[in-house]
Amino acid sequence: MVSVLGFYKDGSVNIWVRPIEGITVIVDLDKVAVVEYSDYEVLPLPKAMGTEYQAASEIKPPFPIPVKPITLVQPDGPSFKINGQQISWADWSFHAAFDVRAGLVISMASIFDMNKGKYRRVLYKGHLSEAFVPYMDPTEGWYYKTYFDGGEFGFGLSAVSLQPQKDCPPSAAFFDGHYADQYGNPVRIENGFLRVRTIVEVRKEVSLVLRMVIVVGNYDYITDWEFKRSGSIKVRVGLSGIIEARATHYTHEEQIKEDLYGTLVAENTIATNHDHYLTYYLDLDIDGEENSLVKTKMKTATSNGDTPRKSYWTVVRETVKNELDARMKLGGEPDYLVITNPNKMTKMGNKVGYRLLPSSPSTSLLLNDDYPQFRASFTKYQVWVTPYNRSEVWAGGLYADRSHGDDTLYTWTNSNRDIENKDIVLWHMVGFHHIPAQEDFPIMPTQVMGLS
Amino acid sequence: MVSVLGFYKDGSVNIWVRPIEGITVIVDLDKVAVVEYSDYEVLPLPKAMGTEYQAASEIKPPFPIPVKPITLVQPDGPSFKINGQQISWADWSFHAAFDVRAGLVISMASIFDMNKGKYRRVLYKGHLSEAFVPYMDPTEGWYYKTYFDGGEFGFGLSAVSLQPQKDCPPSAAFFDGHYADQYGNPVRIENGFLRVRTIVEVRKEVSLVLRMVIVVGNYDYITDWEFKRSGSIKVRVGLSGIIEARATHYTHEEQIKEDLYGTLVAENTIATNHDHYLTYYLDLDIDGEENSLVKTKMKTATSNGDTPRKSYWTVVRETVKNELDARMKLGGEPDYLVITNPNKMTKMGNKVGYRLLPSSPSTSLLLNDDYPQFRASFTKYQVWVTPYNRSEVWAGGLYADRSHGDDTLYTWTNSNRDIENKDIVLWHMVGFHHIPAQEDFPIMPTQVMGLS
Repeated sequence: MVSVLGFYKDGSVNIWVRPIEGITVIVDLDKVAVVEYSDYEVLPLPKAMGTEYQAASEIKPPFPIPVKPITLVQPDGPSFKINGQQISWADWSFHAAFDVRAGLVISMASIFDMNKGKYRRVLYKGHLSEAFVPYMDPTEGWYYKTYFDGGEFGFGLSAVSLQPQKDCPPSAAFFDGHYADQYGNPVRIENGFLRVRTIVEVRKEVSLVLRMVIVVGNYDYITDWEFKRSGSIKVRVGLSGIIEARATHYTHEEQIKEDLYGTLVAENTIATNHDHYLTYYLDLDIDGEENSLVKTKMKTATSNGDTPRKSYWTVVRETVKNELDARMKLGGEPDYLVITNPNKMTKMGNKVGYRLLPSSPSTSLLLNDDYPQFRASFTKYQVWVTPYNRSEVWAGGLYADRSHGDDTLYTWTNSNRDIENKDIVLWHMVGFHHIPAQEDFPIMPTQVMGLS
Repeated sequence: MVSVLGFYKDGSVNIWVRPIEGITVIVDLDKVAVVEYSDYEVLPLPKAMGTEYQAASEIKPPFPIPVKPITLVQPDGPSFKINGQQISWADWSFHAAFDVRAGLVISMASIFDMNKGKYRRVLYKGHLSEAFVPYMDPTEGWYYKTYFDGGEFGFGLSAVSLQPQKDCPPSAAFFDGHYADQYGNPVRIENGFLRVRTIVEVRKEVSLVLRMVIVVGNYDYITDWEFKRSGSIKVRVGLSGIIEARATHYTHEEQIKEDLYGTLVAENTIATNHDHYLTYYLDLDIDGEENSLVKTKMKTATSNGDTPRKSYWTVVRETVKNELDARMKLGGEPDYLVITNPNKMTKMGNKVGYRLLPSSPSTSLLLNDDYPQFRASFTKYQVWVTPYNRSEVWAGGLYADRSHGDDTLYTWTNSNRDIENKDIVLWHMVGFHHIPAQEDFPIMPTQVMGLS
């Protein structure tokens, strides 16, 4: 059974901006028949003026003040080496693969230790696990819009071909992605993902970026994995695309006296409030399989009175023992979250580890017993750690599209397994609450969130 | 009166890594005499092996795997235009100046509205106001290390010349900075700041970056103002440089049984825990002088039962009336902070405004009645809004070096003035707690924090 949405295709190349609102059509896909039809509200069709967005189309003035061309040049060619799906660049070496569900999968990422003369493992496997996108309109026609962009649509299935020189610099190399369609036929996504070198923010820092652009319906996710020479890895998602809009009678803010669950962004057009939560699966193997999560807190301490100084903060380190203690909402107490290898020490006796630098610490605001939230219970925390289990890959469950919430990261971690000095998986959610602004219409300026 | 620190200059070009610990020397600058000398502890001099960092020096192998050269090319030249200190690029136009205390000062930043055919003001004036850097070692010799890098040292006074091609791309242009030294003689900082175009993260997005690098003692602040074509402004600080270290008897972590207020990063070397808080002065004039701060909260709401959906979040907007309500710690409740012009509306009736996108929401953990915290009371919140007052520019007071805490952002805002629909100043603090890691020694990998 699927709910079919209607859009009027005339008047704009942008089909998303002319929704035919107020009709619900339920189709039984097995019977290929409409089983329910409800025409519950008559609403105008948005005019969709100025919503042209294709570069090929004729766009009319006025135009913004142009900038001159700019490009990256590598006179001696790129620094990366490719051997099949194996990529090496600077001190990094890793495997990059395409997966129909996860999209880009990075595995066996290791960094060369020039002093020891060998590679040391950092990440066994990392990829997007699930995304939850609930819309905040509880009315007929919208209440069920609580998408799982991974498990229901597929990040790899939704990947689009990258355009050389536009989505990436001239020296970029591209990989195709392959998958089997619903009839078993092979499908190729040309230039489905790529690797590219880019100059980033500070000084002459150069890093390697792997990019995949995923278009799920009206939304674009620009997903990047950046490998830095310092040894850090940065994972980013840029959100762009077209706001999901609802038709309305209103043409001006001052006419609106009720809650319409969004922002009036154009005549007869409400862009609906919503969230994006993206959960990453990060099977870290820092310098070996057995790792631990260490919560490093800063606590205000009082001085002993020997000096005029009354206070300072001191460091309290706590190795997290089990799954329930590893469930965390960030943004409250000051802390560092570090994944360490307790079995490997530096010459000075410090434990080898990587710190998680999160951004945009949002969690779901839906009630726990609301059905969509029950299915997306993995959005209640930003950090989770589980012992490696090959059947636990998809935070919203293996069969996310039909999930009743009984096979999720939340239910697995309820068994509260031991995670100290084990082969552990770090799950990290980045997310943001989106109250649309008028400038998000018709195309949203890219907003970036991520982790390092 | 100044406290003089001793460093042993032999054995490394890096003077900061060989502190002569355990001696306090107080000098009366008027009398040019030592007025206090205390030799309270005998500690070894760190050996400072491998702390060479100058490019010109002979650095020995092993070396990391190299990457090939990469550069930015603009075949038709840069897109910016310079007229004195006035810069225009794409739709942006603004004035950039050098100030001995604030460093880089951006003023009169306006963006061209192609539909109206005129520039619209965004920022009247913006710059760094103050930085507070408290070290977390309360003992003799360290307790007073609670620096005000702006008011005590001067961001402009500490600016260093930028190196073409290294600190910035080939098409960059440079400005000199000028100031009067303590004898009234003019001093020129060559290439003190610059403007540069750079490709940033996503797609073929090009933006204009103004950079100034500030070196205060051992620490480097790489400060950037980035103007985007979307109309947003991004302000960033990259922290790098050399960790402030303390000598110790210890050579291995396992020997340490007491709190040494830092991390053993090399033999006989403790890198001390500390914070960096940078407060920006942002006199926004969005489409006119009169602006308001609007706190836009997301609140969980319960549905009326017409559909199976039980909950959603709804938007509650609250215009902040006075200074005390505008003092905010971020990272708790989900909200958007928006500076609006309540007198200007879009065609749809939405108020014109800019949203503050903060990062790294840290606040000081020192006790309120601790003397350094009393002087740095402006570090207790990340957001403050004041009505414009020409004498209120420096968050730590005009005479920050001799401040007793009676002329600060905190004391001004205690008068709780009205800030609704006024010419207001937004003060925003970015900051981070730094527990040094062994890889921060001898030179810290750049960590970036900022706001948009």
